[in-house]
Amino acid sequence: MEPLILHEYALSGNCYKIRLTAAHVGVPLERRQYDILKGQTRTPEFLSQVNANGRIPVLQTGERFLPESNAAAFYLADGSPLVPEDRFARADMLHWLFWEQYNHEPNIATVRFWRTMLGEDRLNDLQRAQLPAKIAGGEAALALMDAHLARQPYLVGGGFTLADILLYAYTHVAEEGGFALAPYRHVRDWINRVAAQPGHIGIAD
Amino acid sequence: MEPLILHEYALSGNCYKIRLTAAHVGVPLERRQYDILKGQTRTPEFLSQVNANGRIPVLQTGERFLPESNAAAFYLADGSPLVPEDRFARADMLHWLFWEQYNHEPNIATVRFWRTMLGEDRLNDLQRAQLPAKIAGGEAALALMDAHLARQPYLVGGGFTLADILLYAYTHVAEEGGFALAPYRHVRDWINRVAAQPGHIGIAD
Repeated sequence: MEPLILHEYALSGNCYKIRLTAAHVGVPLERRQYDILKGQTRTPEFLSQVNANGRIPVLQTGERFLPESNAAAFYLADGSPLVPEDRFARADMLHWLFWEQYNHEPNIATVRFWRTMLGEDRLNDLQRAQLPAKIAGGEAALALMDAHLARQPYLVGGGFTLADILLYAYTHVAEEGGFALAPYRHVRDWINRVAAQPGHIGIAD
Repeated sequence: MEPLILHEYALSGNCYKIRLTAAHVGVPLERRQYDILKGQTRTPEFLSQVNANGRIPVLQTGERFLPESNAAAFYLADGSPLVPEDRFARADMLHWLFWEQYNHEPNIATVRFWRTMLGEDRLNDLQRAQLPAKIAGGEAALALMDAHLARQPYLVGGGFTLADILLYAYTHVAEEGGFALAPYRHVRDWINRVAAQPGHIGIAD
């Protein structure tokens, strides 16, 4: 594999997903930092050279750029035991990744970003109007995970996969956004199981 | 492959994605309809037996259930030429699928649903407050696709893939949500190229 460069904002859980996956598969990453609060991913240079969508993370290999955290993590994990060989299990793993982007990240990660990075008193009117629905959506996502993890130790039947790594990223810091994990015992046990995996690194490592 | 059952709402572009993929790979689907406007995917029976997330589409094979349209379509296409064999191209294809769920569907599909199925005068205050941002987000998604498709005929370098099928689903009906496609010539040309592929079926077929 060519040398890999991660264009990132270190505090972002989406960027941590890629670092954690790389740690599990033993691939080194060069890291380049952008301050999203200062608009450093919306400059003409970033938009034309790194990601036309103006977002991090982006994984660079040679002169090729791969946006979207879950796709970049899949690229690193492809061919490893983190991606199931069984066809149904592989698709079921992807189902958790798409669910994360639609039902989990826009609620749990966005509320965490608004509250801890932007600051709740600096939200605009639309953000403030959306907050209750996003809190309810985040709680629903945690409840769905909890009910599922009551029945099996990892998200996909058969064991630890990339889905656990990618869902761990924002779930384990959900309390920073005000989501109490105390009611979700099975989620808490799963967080501990994921963090105990060989190769695990923390979000600040 | 075991017989496949698609739990769906026929007018939904997310359900069409799966039918279109199945048509391309030549796999028959049994279709079961649910009226989402009548809450038929939120019944206790549906939540416990089909999808705890209360959404369609869900692809059923035997006694196993696969939610999330893009994951179900991937399951059907896996191993076919619609999923690139090259590792980078495969991840790049997934990048478009994740981008679709985060930047395209929540804007273009949601505005279409609100305007054509719910009715714009029946929106609640939060939906009405979100509408301008969702229209702007949908326009940005179409502009990003247009700039990309100005440089290459299909979303992923190398040719027609599952990403084209899945992005086609809501892009080709974007005008139903009020998004004019006239300014996006490269998107319009791409829509025609996708619809001309052997195996193509329409959303109402």
